[in-house]
Amino acid sequence: MNILDKVNSRKDLLALRSEELPLLCQDIREFLRSKISVTGGHLASSLGTVEITVALHRVYDAERDRLLFDVGHQSYVHKILTGRKNAFDQLRRFGGLSGFPKPCESVCDPFVAGHASDSVSVALGMARARTLLHENYDVVAILGDGALTGGLSYEALCDLGQSGEPMVVILNDNGMSISPSVGGAARMLSRIRVEPAYLNFKRSFHRVMKPFPKTMTAIHDGKEWLKDRVLPDNIFDSMGLYYIGPVDGHNVTELETQLRWARDMNKPVLLHVCTRKGKGIDYAEKDPAKYHGVGPFDPITGETAPKKPDFSSVFGSELCALAEKNPRICAITAAMEDGTGLTAFAEKYPGRFFDVGIAEGHATALCGGLAKQGMIPVFAVYSTFLQRSYDMLIEDISLLGLHAVFCVDRSGLVGADGETHQGSFDAAYLATIPGMTILEPSSFAELRAMLRHALEECSGPVAVCYPRGGEGTWKGEWNGESVSVLREGSELTIVSYGVMINEALSAAEALAAEGIEAEVIKLSSLSPLDTERVLSSLRKTGRFVFAAECCHAGSPAQTILAAAAEAGVLLRGSRRLDLGSGIVKQGDIPTLRARQGIDAAAIVNAAKEILHEESKTGSAGI
Amino acid sequence: MNILDKVNSRKDLLALRSEELPLLCQDIREFLRSKISVTGGHLASSLGTVEITVALHRVYDAERDRLLFDVGHQSYVHKILTGRKNAFDQLRRFGGLSGFPKPCESVCDPFVAGHASDSVSVALGMARARTLLHENYDVVAILGDGALTGGLSYEALCDLGQSGEPMVVILNDNGMSISPSVGGAARMLSRIRVEPAYLNFKRSFHRVMKPFPKTMTAIHDGKEWLKDRVLPDNIFDSMGLYYIGPVDGHNVTELETQLRWARDMNKPVLLHVCTRKGKGIDYAEKDPAKYHGVGPFDPITGETAPKKPDFSSVFGSELCALAEKNPRICAITAAMEDGTGLTAFAEKYPGRFFDVGIAEGHATALCGGLAKQGMIPVFAVYSTFLQRSYDMLIEDISLLGLHAVFCVDRSGLVGADGETHQGSFDAAYLATIPGMTILEPSSFAELRAMLRHALEECSGPVAVCYPRGGEGTWKGEWNGESVSVLREGSELTIVSYGVMINEALSAAEALAAEGIEAEVIKLSSLSPLDTERVLSSLRKTGRFVFAAECCHAGSPAQTILAAAAEAGVLLRGSRRLDLGSGIVKQGDIPTLRARQGIDAAAIVNAAKEILHEESKTGSAGI
Repeated sequence: MNILDKVNSRKDLLALRSEELPLLCQDIREFLRSKISVTGGHLASSLGTVEITVALHRVYDAERDRLLFDVGHQSYVHKILTGRKNAFDQLRRFGGLSGFPKPCESVCDPFVAGHASDSVSVALGMARARTLLHENYDVVAILGDGALTGGLSYEALCDLGQSGEPMVVILNDNGMSISPSVGGAARMLSRIRVEPAYLNFKRSFHRVMKPFPKTMTAIHDGKEWLKDRVLPDNIFDSMGLYYIGPVDGHNVTELETQLRWARDMNKPVLLHVCTRKGKGIDYAEKDPAKYHGVGPFDPITGETAPKKPDFSSVFGSELCALAEKNPRICAITAAMEDGTGLTAFAEKYPGRFFDVGIAEGHATALCGGLAKQGMIPVFAVYSTFLQRSYDMLIEDISLLGLHAVFCVDRSGLVGADGETHQGSFDAAYLATIPGMTILEPSSFAELRAMLRHALEECSGPVAVCYPRGGEGTWKGEWNGESVSVLREGSELTIVSYGVMINEALSAAEALAAEGIEAEVIKLSSLSPLDTERVLSSLRKTGRFVFAAECCHAGSPAQTILAAAAEAGVLLRGSRRLDLGSGIVKQGDIPTLRARQGIDAAAIVNAAKEILHEESKTGSAGI
Repeated sequence: MNILDKVNSRKDLLALRSEELPLLCQDIREFLRSKISVTGGHLASSLGTVEITVALHRVYDAERDRLLFDVGHQSYVHKILTGRKNAFDQLRRFGGLSGFPKPCESVCDPFVAGHASDSVSVALGMARARTLLHENYDVVAILGDGALTGGLSYEALCDLGQSGEPMVVILNDNGMSISPSVGGAARMLSRIRVEPAYLNFKRSFHRVMKPFPKTMTAIHDGKEWLKDRVLPDNIFDSMGLYYIGPVDGHNVTELETQLRWARDMNKPVLLHVCTRKGKGIDYAEKDPAKYHGVGPFDPITGETAPKKPDFSSVFGSELCALAEKNPRICAITAAMEDGTGLTAFAEKYPGRFFDVGIAEGHATALCGGLAKQGMIPVFAVYSTFLQRSYDMLIEDISLLGLHAVFCVDRSGLVGADGETHQGSFDAAYLATIPGMTILEPSSFAELRAMLRHALEECSGPVAVCYPRGGEGTWKGEWNGESVSVLREGSELTIVSYGVMINEALSAAEALAAEGIEAEVIKLSSLSPLDTERVLSSLRKTGRFVFAAECCHAGSPAQTILAAAAEAGVLLRGSRRLDLGSGIVKQGDIPTLRARQGIDAAAIVNAAKEILHEESKTGSAGI
């Protein structure tokens, strides 16, 4: 029986002797390897934070204190230590354990996480609430150096520094976020790491003063003027945080000591911890980017199934081809080079490739400057993360009608990443951006053609939205039209876009088998949306079923129905199958489509309901 | 004849002798005083940047080089020096000179500006485009220390530091943005300003090396390792920028010298300039916040007309009253304490008031943490700036259904601030946020009641949206309903919300005078929107006119019309009067309403058109 088997509560963890802790960490790593190799998930970041998390749970009581894991993909160890070991077989599956912290899952998860860089903001809010309500708990934010490239972290650290609010920020510095960290933030950290005078002073000061935290605080305050004059200042000190570090992030005992000390300082403290992403498993250490988020793999060799072509890879290779002919094309990513399919582009055109860190706002405004001076910027970004650029899309792109192309990956349902990552909102929020063209490829061939169209033929801002994963049965070429009829029928109009047209076509076939002839309309452009083409079908059939992976408010169905009302087109029946007005949970796509009631079966049911209602109420249904 | 009269081009400016420059600056200040005292506008920031701007135009050619003024309210001097002196009588008026840079106005304005902190991003995009396209011009971003509190600036500086892209960032440090700057960024700057060793080294190094810029660069590079070890590092150095400063921002000659040197460095340079906001005019220097954005005033005494009560002030006083009874209520602003009406709250409840700097993203995520732990956070923010929080509204508020209240000021048309500041989008983007309640007070009394309702009776996120300025003729109390009928009628349904219901009511009266009986429906809640109540009116009248200050896509009219189509309500005529799909220009509100075709006259016309069409085509109109 290994040590992890004995640890089922914080009490068990506290009962361990110091020398058992490294063994526990080893057990946890083996547990992660064996579980994630089957389910897939975020491996490398969790491996890097095993010791930090064990130390955290020794020093803090997660039921009482608030531990906020930024982004949250490194929270697996935290889940293991808070009673969720047995749920790992269902990791990231429908109804199963989430890959991110989630308050509904455990009292030990104080907040949702998923988008980078918000943990210090949230933690500071919690710390302020605690102080204002005279409560008694500690608040800790744990963020990676990647999260530090996001301006949101900087805004929060600035506020924290002046607040004086007792709280600990653990900076987990592994020299990379998902890809190796880039930019000024990484440079700052590397300089802090190698600054010998600073480090040595801090180290000896801490060592000597360790038994007397209160005295130390007093001395520190009194001698601040001296320190200012003899020692280099780092960004965190300047902001008003008390900086401790760097600390070896794989030494549990040292971490525990420093954490206790940071906690007892009763100030805003930044504890700088150096770790190795993928630590302890050779293949993950060697290629942490590959094992950041990974599908099932061989636990011994790390071997993964070969990647199938998907929309991201098709985008990447087509962009390379277009860039070869046109030197004005450049590509921008916000720390998602591999995920968005830009690896080949980055290798082939390093001078035209910009990875700006986890900084979607900057990426979009940067596109504005590039476009204004004659380049054609292509920002490849996940739908959910482009939400961070909503304002910049209006102010820095749309106001001047600049020709910038937004390749919106993971549009619609994302699957296992769940609530925080669903691309539910893009159809609605992009439609509000003045002058924005919104293209929705349904196949790889369409993506290629629409990307070419977006870059070479469009003016003004263009969004090309495509889903996670691959194409379906429909592999058609784009006819260049904004709306097209994929199948003719007289009794019902089914409208869809993107890969969801596969569900629409399946439904139409199923209905045909029962003698119901449905017309299937594919929207290739949501904006402009040629509602007249859709209305002419509705005038014929009088029945409307819409099915798409978008939120209810502001969906294209609303635009079509409003146009129908204005044109006086009377519908005998109508159903909108969409993602509704709530938050969509995690799960595989077919399950989610079925649960949300937007798959082929749901379309068939909706169609029959409409026809059935009419037969009950008479031909017009009104 | 003063010197400014002689300066009509860059050639004139270059012809001036050094000793004439301070006189020119004095003339410019008098020009600003005399013009802005009549039109109103942004006075204090332009006064502070007179010398910087004169120096910039001596060193750079604004027609060829790209000078980017962050936010842009300090660009008046730039406009004076680039041939727009005579346009100042129409400053901020419809069809007149914009208060912000605008490419359509002059080739010397390379980009729009209005929202803080984007200038470094845009400038870096331009610098990269220049380099990639082998063109030859310089790029300069001029930003205030306030803009530095925004994470967007930090993201861009991080990217710039590692890019090596030749470009100059001028940090105009006056120790305040609109209100005195707060937080870690301000603290960092104050420490840089007083760091004597660093400053002295830099100064003497620059003085000695001034005639040999290339040698200096080489020496600097070679000795970087030494400098690292003997001199404190500041954040900008650490990021990879070459830091110069601080420089006296009111000494044109010194500024010119330093600027030339910065330009010739051929690197990313940050030039730190210290200025005084309001410089040169006593009352503006004494109270720069008051003269930041100001209405007409007495040019001698600075006296302004007393402020009339407006939605912001009513909000502020009602929030104070509610906070007195409930210690869980706290208020958050993003550097807009005065503008959002929170000054009294900040004085009365300093412990429950948080000014986070120009950091709307952080403000919203902070609300998430506060709300999760039992506080009731109220974030008062202009509609256009809340766009920066779109993602945080979803991820940090909506996902957990947290009870946070967003008081959305300047919703709808903002008037003189124009394109970059219109609150056109909130109705659409807020409606996509799962669980968001959206309330739209039409009078001061309704604002008070809805704020109370939002704080005391709602759960989940709530937005209370109200316009710039005061209430109209309609001063009714809120009946607690989400939809109410303000006037009954049988021939036509006019739907509106907010202060626009005054236009709807005027239109109904005008129509009544011509014998046409219009029903006027007021939406008090846009989400949830009780479409059934509206439909029952439409079933009666069969004619629909919607009038509101919102963008076309995702507007409440779309929701209503879609519901009508689904319910089989046949409309004999329908008109949507809204802000359309473009960008609304600057001007006074009545002019803008008339131009956009959403005022009472436009509603009357729309109503008559509908009735007229029918009489032409027969009763049903289809």
